[in-house]
Amino acid sequence: MKIAIIGATGMAGTALFKESVLRGHEVTAIVRHKDKAVSLLGDGVKVIEKDVFDLTRSELEGFDVIINAFATAPAKAYLHLDLAAKLVNIFRETERPRLFFILGAASLLDENNKLFLDTLKTSPDVAPWISIPVEAYKTLNFLRSIENVNWVGVSPSAEFVPGEATVPVLGKDHLLTSSEGKSVVTSGTMAVAILDEVENPQFIRTRFTVCNQ
Amino acid sequence: MKIAIIGATGMAGTALFKESVLRGHEVTAIVRHKDKAVSLLGDGVKVIEKDVFDLTRSELEGFDVIINAFATAPAKAYLHLDLAAKLVNIFRETERPRLFFILGAASLLDENNKLFLDTLKTSPDVAPWISIPVEAYKTLNFLRSIENVNWVGVSPSAEFVPGEATVPVLGKDHLLTSSEGKSVVTSGTMAVAILDEVENPQFIRTRFTVCNQ
Repeated sequence: MKIAIIGATGMAGTALFKESVLRGHEVTAIVRHKDKAVSLLGDGVKVIEKDVFDLTRSELEGFDVIINAFATAPAKAYLHLDLAAKLVNIFRETERPRLFFILGAASLLDENNKLFLDTLKTSPDVAPWISIPVEAYKTLNFLRSIENVNWVGVSPSAEFVPGEATVPVLGKDHLLTSSEGKSVVTSGTMAVAILDEVENPQFIRTRFTVCNQ
Repeated sequence: MKIAIIGATGMAGTALFKESVLRGHEVTAIVRHKDKAVSLLGDGVKVIEKDVFDLTRSELEGFDVIINAFATAPAKAYLHLDLAAKLVNIFRETERPRLFFILGAASLLDENNKLFLDTLKTSPDVAPWISIPVEAYKTLNFLRSIENVNWVGVSPSAEFVPGEATVPVLGKDHLLTSSEGKSVVTSGTMAVAILDEVENPQFIRTRFTVCNQ
């Protein structure tokens, strides 16, 4: 399939790029800096070098799947919501491309059905980064109101760290933990789970979550 | 003040245009068809003739106030949400211009605190038009999550009809009725209430509602 990855030079993005190539898909990296993409992803990488907010419909409509692994500084966290709204607007009344959004873990529920975001807010020293999970949660709520675009949300586990792929465990709206009680997903496992979903869609206009076994 | 009115040739827009001119503001009509604007608003009307989704920051940032009186067919009602997201994206981290959104009455509560949209959904033959209040409600919920843009929402009463100005009665989140028990606002009264709010801001990042006395 033709897959575009927004933010392909980030932690999630590089793992997604490698897993997509491994499975034989035709992958395009959408990045701000081509040099960085070439150095991280190889000389042969297909690149659209552009600010995401300048992307046009004609540049994006040829893809079967667009995976949004956009990342930004906490002060600009609201751009996650704005980018979701922009992609939704471009692809209203379409089923293709399918749009994947990596949304953070804060919108998941714990075993007492308490929103993980509310727990995060009570942690010490959250001010420097809390805008990221806050805006990711808004983005999911925005997407949940969208009925005529083919979107899917993906939440990592409580910890989302660089690392090789293991067998992914999937869930819906609750924070997952491994058999050892850890809520961790590696970028490699996340990429496997997302590519599985790309190739075999099971979560249509909803969100799923991924954990390392 | 410099005021732009999106949808200035519609029912709400024409009344807003006339009230703004009457009060001595410098008004620009943002419309799809200049001819229609000239015939409805007069030869001297200042016009930006453009699809709203093609508007750029540089075209809009000179205004003190932008009043969004955009209207669309029910099949495209989702464009209300998309336009709100576009304007929010353009004006992130600003206090000026102030953005007014006309949002419909469906997001108001009745005397039993029941959402008026839920009552509307139970009316007969709602299918042809229910998308309009549904999307207006989504738009308000979207705006309620926006903290770094100077937005204000305005809901009419249950009936929003063409007509001269009377003295407006204002409320917050509950459907208003007149002393005769009617929930009606005319376009003229709506325009008076909005221009009062333009000149004397009282509702910051919140929504208010207007009724004829």
